[in-house]
Amino acid sequence: MKTLEAVVEAVLIGDHPESFITRRLEEATLEFGGIPGDRHFGMTIASNSRQPMYPKGTEILNRRQISILSAEECLLIAEKLSLENILPEWLGANLLLSGYAELTQLPMGSRILFPNGTGLICMGENQPCVLPGKVIQNIHGSRPKLAAQFVSAAFKRRGIVCAVERPGKIQQGDRVKILVNDFSNPMQ
Amino acid sequence: MKTLEAVVEAVLIGDHPESFITRRLEEATLEFGGIPGDRHFGMTIASNSRQPMYPKGTEILNRRQISILSAEECLLIAEKLSLENILPEWLGANLLLSGYAELTQLPMGSRILFPNGTGLICMGENQPCVLPGKVIQNIHGSRPKLAAQFVSAAFKRRGIVCAVERPGKIQQGDRVKILVNDFSNPMQ
Repeated sequence: MKTLEAVVEAVLIGDHPESFITRRLEEATLEFGGIPGDRHFGMTIASNSRQPMYPKGTEILNRRQISILSAEECLLIAEKLSLENILPEWLGANLLLSGYAELTQLPMGSRILFPNGTGLICMGENQPCVLPGKVIQNIHGSRPKLAAQFVSAAFKRRGIVCAVERPGKIQQGDRVKILVNDFSNPMQ
Repeated sequence: MKTLEAVVEAVLIGDHPESFITRRLEEATLEFGGIPGDRHFGMTIASNSRQPMYPKGTEILNRRQISILSAEECLLIAEKLSLENILPEWLGANLLLSGYAELTQLPMGSRILFPNGTGLICMGENQPCVLPGKVIQNIHGSRPKLAAQFVSAAFKRRGIVCAVERPGKIQQGDRVKILVNDFSNPMQ
């Protein structure tokens, strides 16, 4: 099993009642369910258009507790759009990592372990939603068609979603270990 | 996304305090956490030797709530061992499905949907434990080295583990839909 390292560049929470945009915290104490107060917090959650196999609003297991982006992928998106940066806030991310450029490709079942033993389990690639493109378009109002360009530039660079496997405190600057799941000999 | 069908041949519970062997039920009402009374029930569970990245006994998210075997894979194991059958009870399974021969290869994130809307989410291949080999050796006491032969015959045929995504009643005879996750365009 391959083991990688990465650094927590930012911890963010989505606690605005009318916006998915997140804001930075110095630290957060993860519980089973995610970051308390975050819009995606909960061991269970109401299904939405991402789960069309269930009637909308059905209580289902929440595997999308924590969303994570890589700084390298954000930079690539920005370069493709000739922008100075793409901030994790705009995509509603909860964590920004650096040091693992291909984060979006991290296989399901991989683990992200923090120095104090806190653990996340990767529940797979975060499929695009259209809202971040609109945010970025609003910020750069003078650029035509930026929302559509963002969708293309961000394809397969939207990072991953995770569930909390072991609760605990996480903070900016944490150096995390990433245990990459190998489907031919999968972690349990 | 590929959709398959299968039939629930058996629903089983592991509720013996001193044995992992399961017994058949006509039906079970799944809750978040699994089958109430089953030894693997719980939204969280104590880590064991399968999760060496955590100190043994750490409370972690339970992704191994329901274990599932395919009748076809059980038959293949039996044939390799020249036995009449391999029962799901002996492997401690909670469900036996027929109609999807390669169940063990079902990708993580795939869904198993029951006629009434109950849903399971595949958390990956169930890595072998040594106990079933001992059970089968005990049953067929006259056959030397059967426990070791079982390990080899059952390689990559031990089925999968799932978590309950949407609670509800399941029963023998249910015809289930299997939504196969495609990592190039993953379900959310």
